[in-house]
Amino acid sequence: MNRKQILIGTDTISGIAPEILKACLLASDEKTLPYGNDIFTKKCKNIISKIFEKQDLEIIPMMSGTASNSLAISSFLRSYGSVLCHSESHINKDEGGAPEFFSGGGKLEVISSNSGRLNSKDITDKLNELDFKGKQHSKISGISLTQLAENGTLYSQNEILAISKICKKNNFYLHMDGARFSNALVSQQSVSPAEATWKIGIDCLSLGATKNGAMAAEVIIFFNKNLALEAKKMIKQTGHIIPKTRFITAQLNAWFTDGLWLKLAQKANDNATYLRGELSKFEDFKILYPTQGNEVFIRINKKTYNKIIELNIIPNLWRKTSNDEIEVRFVTSFETKFSLIDEIMHRFKTCFDYKLDPII
Amino acid sequence: MNRKQILIGTDTISGIAPEILKACLLASDEKTLPYGNDIFTKKCKNIISKIFEKQDLEIIPMMSGTASNSLAISSFLRSYGSVLCHSESHINKDEGGAPEFFSGGGKLEVISSNSGRLNSKDITDKLNELDFKGKQHSKISGISLTQLAENGTLYSQNEILAISKICKKNNFYLHMDGARFSNALVSQQSVSPAEATWKIGIDCLSLGATKNGAMAAEVIIFFNKNLALEAKKMIKQTGHIIPKTRFITAQLNAWFTDGLWLKLAQKANDNATYLRGELSKFEDFKILYPTQGNEVFIRINKKTYNKIIELNIIPNLWRKTSNDEIEVRFVTSFETKFSLIDEIMHRFKTCFDYKLDPII
Amino acid sequence: MNRKQILIGTDTISGIAPEILKACLLASDEKTLPYGNDIFTKKCKNIISKIFEKQDLEIIPMMSGTASNSLAISSFLRSYGSVLCHSESHINKDEGGAPEFFSGGGKLEVISSNSGRLNSKDITDKLNELDFKGKQHSKISGISLTQLAENGTLYSQNEILAISKICKKNNFYLHMDGARFSNALVSQQSVSPAEATWKIGIDCLSLGATKNGAMAAEVIIFFNKNLALEAKKMIKQTGHIIPKTRFITAQLNAWFTDGLWLKLAQKANDNATYLRGELSKFEDFKILYPTQGNEVFIRINKKTYNKIIELNIIPNLWRKTSNDEIEVRFVTSFETKFSLIDEIMHRFKTCFDYKLDPII
Amino acid sequence: MNRKQILIGTDTISGIAPEILKACLLASDEKTLPYGNDIFTKKCKNIISKIFEKQDLEIIPMMSGTASNSLAISSFLRSYGSVLCHSESHINKDEGGAPEFFSGGGKLEVISSNSGRLNSKDITDKLNELDFKGKQHSKISGISLTQLAENGTLYSQNEILAISKICKKNNFYLHMDGARFSNALVSQQSVSPAEATWKIGIDCLSLGATKNGAMAAEVIIFFNKNLALEAKKMIKQTGHIIPKTRFITAQLNAWFTDGLWLKLAQKANDNATYLRGELSKFEDFKILYPTQGNEVFIRINKKTYNKIIELNIIPNLWRKTSNDEIEVRFVTSFETKFSLIDEIMHRFKTCFDYKLDPII
Repeated sequence: MNRKQILIGTDTISGIAPEILKACLLASDEKTLPYGNDIFTKKCKNIISKIFEKQDLEIIPMMSGTASNSLAISSFLRSYGSVLCHSESHINKDEGGAPEFFSGGGKLEVISSNSGRLNSKDITDKLNELDFKGKQHSKISGISLTQLAENGTLYSQNEILAISKICKKNNFYLHMDGARFSNALVSQQSVSPAEATWKIGIDCLSLGATKNGAMAAEVIIFFNKNLALEAKKMIKQTGHIIPKTRFITAQLNAWFTDGLWLKLAQKANDNATYLRGELSKFEDFKILYPTQGNEVFIRINKKTYNKIIELNIIPNLWRKTSNDEIEVRFVTSFETKFSLIDEIMHRFKTCFDYKLDPII
Repeated sequence: MNRKQILIGTDTISGIAPEILKACLLASDEKTLPYGNDIFTKKCKNIISKIFEKQDLEIIPMMSGTASNSLAISSFLRSYGSVLCHSESHINKDEGGAPEFFSGGGKLEVISSNSGRLNSKDITDKLNELDFKGKQHSKISGISLTQLAENGTLYSQNEILAISKICKKNNFYLHMDGARFSNALVSQQSVSPAEATWKIGIDCLSLGATKNGAMAAEVIIFFNKNLALEAKKMIKQTGHIIPKTRFITAQLNAWFTDGLWLKLAQKANDNATYLRGELSKFEDFKILYPTQGNEVFIRINKKTYNKIIELNIIPNLWRKTSNDEIEVRFVTSFETKFSLIDEIMHRFKTCFDYKLDPII
Repeated sequence: MNRKQILIGTDTISGIAPEILKACLLASDEKTLPYGNDIFTKKCKNIISKIFEKQDLEIIPMMSGTASNSLAISSFLRSYGSVLCHSESHINKDEGGAPEFFSGGGKLEVISSNSGRLNSKDITDKLNELDFKGKQHSKISGISLTQLAENGTLYSQNEILAISKICKKNNFYLHMDGARFSNALVSQQSVSPAEATWKIGIDCLSLGATKNGAMAAEVIIFFNKNLALEAKKMIKQTGHIIPKTRFITAQLNAWFTDGLWLKLAQKANDNATYLRGELSKFEDFKILYPTQGNEVFIRINKKTYNKIIELNIIPNLWRKTSNDEIEVRFVTSFETKFSLIDEIMHRFKTCFDYKLDPII
Repeated sequence: MNRKQILIGTDTISGIAPEILKACLLASDEKTLPYGNDIFTKKCKNIISKIFEKQDLEIIPMMSGTASNSLAISSFLRSYGSVLCHSESHINKDEGGAPEFFSGGGKLEVISSNSGRLNSKDITDKLNELDFKGKQHSKISGISLTQLAENGTLYSQNEILAISKICKKNNFYLHMDGARFSNALVSQQSVSPAEATWKIGIDCLSLGATKNGAMAAEVIIFFNKNLALEAKKMIKQTGHIIPKTRFITAQLNAWFTDGLWLKLAQKANDNATYLRGELSKFEDFKILYPTQGNEVFIRINKKTYNKIIELNIIPNLWRKTSNDEIEVRFVTSFETKFSLIDEIMHRFKTCFDYKLDPII
């Protein structure tokens, strides 16, 4: 039996939303200046200003999430400084040392507790510990947090506010890695983009569209315009200004139009909710963390994991928790079909005990 | 009289060839692994191997020409080293210090003579001069040349061979910035891609598709695989691996299929030839350099330049040659229409003396 | 009562051994080539070869311990890589991000357990954890350990051997920060310099003389000569080749002559042993860790600490362990006099309960 | 005939002035805090404030001239920027890429005319040329000039003023590499240290004592205190804060005391004047440039050069000017004895025609 491979470990396997592809087509016909001096990029800034309810912001369109994080962070991180983040954050574990490289040797000071989530108490403890060593230590200039957090959960407004108070007090900048910010936004109904960011102290947001409908489109939104000044000086030499910038901002403009970004995120989240419901029916899987976006984490033993792979279903290996157990991540996107999830479940049932299958 | 603006100073204003846009559409439906572990990228390597007649090469798909040059050069340039290039080369004048940044402080040693073209004599003189100062000077590890050269002309096979002999003798690597390599290739009928590169000693080629039909697609071709090893270790932290790599390689694959890259380049070159012919009819313009690709340079005085701008025609300001004269660049692309060139000429005739207009 | 300030928190307050100062005087009269091409530096290499029983080693004389560590580590750490060390190591906490800077963005992966001491089990666990995340993480290229460790204790031969086995297995380089290597050496009578280093797998040693008798003299000893090649290419641009190099190597030569380095270290260690004995007589001080070199650590509450400061005695604030307790470090040098220690005790007795003072 | 080697190509072979060595001896006995928090460093700042007639300046004591230049320049040069200097300047040709490294990839824009001397006209031309290319070019943030210039000559007050006017107009910082500043100062009798620096617009001075009496002592003087803020943040991670900083500032304090720095420089200059007089008597040597400090340059053919080497006299090979001619540099120091110069002349007379030898 040779079943078709199902990739369900990341939303980066997804394709392009039709509206976004069409926008690229239209942008092709419009001749404008290169390197961001075009009408699409101008429009993009206007759209973002409106959605985030802030006139005096700056944007930098990007094609890579890693670069978007690193450039944003390097706007306040110098080689002799450091930025506080979680040890499991994407910037620390999955970007190959990009923030360190962009800043010429800046340091990430990491906090390891709480499964990928920062909190004000851990931060305060860390600051006390570092402060004690005095001036020979790289000075902290900011904090970076990820919304959705690394374990797929949401930071509440109050949690972020508590962290941003620490920032204000210490003259730190606050960066948000928003690779799945749209998923976070639709997950908390009554919070506006402005309320979720600058109104609670976010200085700059690396907002990602790539995982949620675009081909390659990210945007750094600088609510603090001074940071944008520095980032704009740096970007050329990082190689991240592409000549035909209009093809990035055309993607973004389509993504923001008529709430497409939220609609796509809602679909991805709904798919995750459905997937979680199904996964929870199996005895062998221990579901971890609340599912507040488009990710579902389970803890399984190695044998179970191997069986899943044999079924030609490929989730993401997340973390080893002990010699025999591992954490595995499933990620849905706007494209994931219920029928695909059903097919996964169908295959699972051939191997694993199904808890809530009362009749048969 | 308010005429429509005509941008004719760069090929980066061009759009996407329909074949390439279609390839993106198809790639959207194909779900494969991210970060270059996909079938499009695999296929791209095969296509390039075939076209360049070399099995043991490595490729890195990129989205930015600046990054493509800088990553290629940094595969052999360390912070304590230097690379020889022309002072007018793109890497020295138009990339905001990117090679220096990628290499953590590497140096570009520049040669200033000959309007953007390196030659073996100037290189030998420079090496003698540097060698004399001994070990306190950043050691040269390679040479970078641009094909088409900065002034739109072609390096002959023999010219490159002479430079590559210097490289062999001194253990230098030889990089080619091939932003307009396809224009160069069609300009010299009987030279194959292999003959134009590794067979005459090129170690790595930054080949650009963006100016010639793609949205954002470049590829570094490492004929010397050792260099690729180093570049592949570096790329993640420069932020230049995008998750959905398939959308770059899908563009490249379409570009290479059925000789599309050469067809597009031929169109661009033909347009330049036509444009040159027309420009040469004006008394006020002094045409500079042979037109061996898609660029035409003229020398005019400032007054003439201002008149051109008033006609709402925007060429590229290239160089100030004296207090009163400037060099101006016109660039055509695969999309430039003869009718557009005719419209430019039509406007020019309202202001400038037309040499060869015998009848009227 | 205004007592004279007593600085007892670091050995960097010490002066110069007379033999070393005399060597500088003699070197002044000897005219030789600058930048390390002198007879003192040549002789230094010979002396070190003999003492460390190895012909094919390379040395780089340095003036700064931070630079000595960073240059040694950067010989195998590139911007995209990482080095494993303890979170309390000098390179991580006290060098302001120097290894990260020297390597252009390299990363220190830290282990936090066990009070400043690495061990093979913690390293293995960390490697398993990192390995799991796969290729997006900065690749480890080496391990750095400190002898004496950060808490003043000795790594045994077997402990280092276990770590060096991990290095061999994983193709890691092994660096030793030997700022107090001489103190460690005299502390374990029967171990030779060779046995303490390359015979148990150390690839390069940053050996410090500054804390132990010199003015400003350190030397990187590369038992692995390939690493020296890279370091020697880097050093000029770090600004760490001083013109009159002979004044560093003259210091080192005197330091090594007739076992001066070991005699000075023995004095420093003896002073620490005496100090520890005296400190242990006070009820209020909890002595921590074995004293295996020239450092003594005590745990006290904040009130006690404040009293010590009021006595105008200045130890080193080491670590905050809880809200009310802190760890404090005393460091002796070859110059510390028993009478100074007696004076400290005399002052302490005016404030603190003296355990073993049976008669008075 | 096996004559003793005479090194006369650089002042870095000189030894230590007795007053300075004695100061090191005294500093050894004085126990103070490490890392620059000592009374010697405090005193050094006071002395410099007084000598340079400026209260609000900052100093950073250094041990390396290369590092002193690089750290000073990096206080206003970021990775994306550039600094204008002469192509023959020490920072461009003799520091192995240190300014580029310290700034993480900053660029040196060079001017090649006029034998190592900048002037306002060449600078203006260069700025016009660069300005023309627009925003893709690394932005210039400052100018660095060397006093004495690379060819041993003096910049006049008016020449520097003209350059500093350009700086003011363009918001550039102005750095002076003062490796031989003391030689320059005594060479122009009526100009005070203040007049020679901040009063004509110098923002920071890398002042060297090493070539002129010290063992290893340099000091960056920041007349513009903002620059010092940035440099002080950077220095730790460059490895250039040595623990026993007092041994640098003790050297400097002795150097400044009772005008020792000027007396030593005067001796060195006098020696050069005498040497020049003697050299000028030979037919085979063409003396170049005015001798306004402690350097004498001659142009000779290769055959003559080889003869000099055979006499076991080692000047500095300066520059190749044509296939058969080279420029050679002689440098005197405070220690050079007239008798040594006489010995050189004595040997020369055995080979070369002596112009002004009227009797024989």
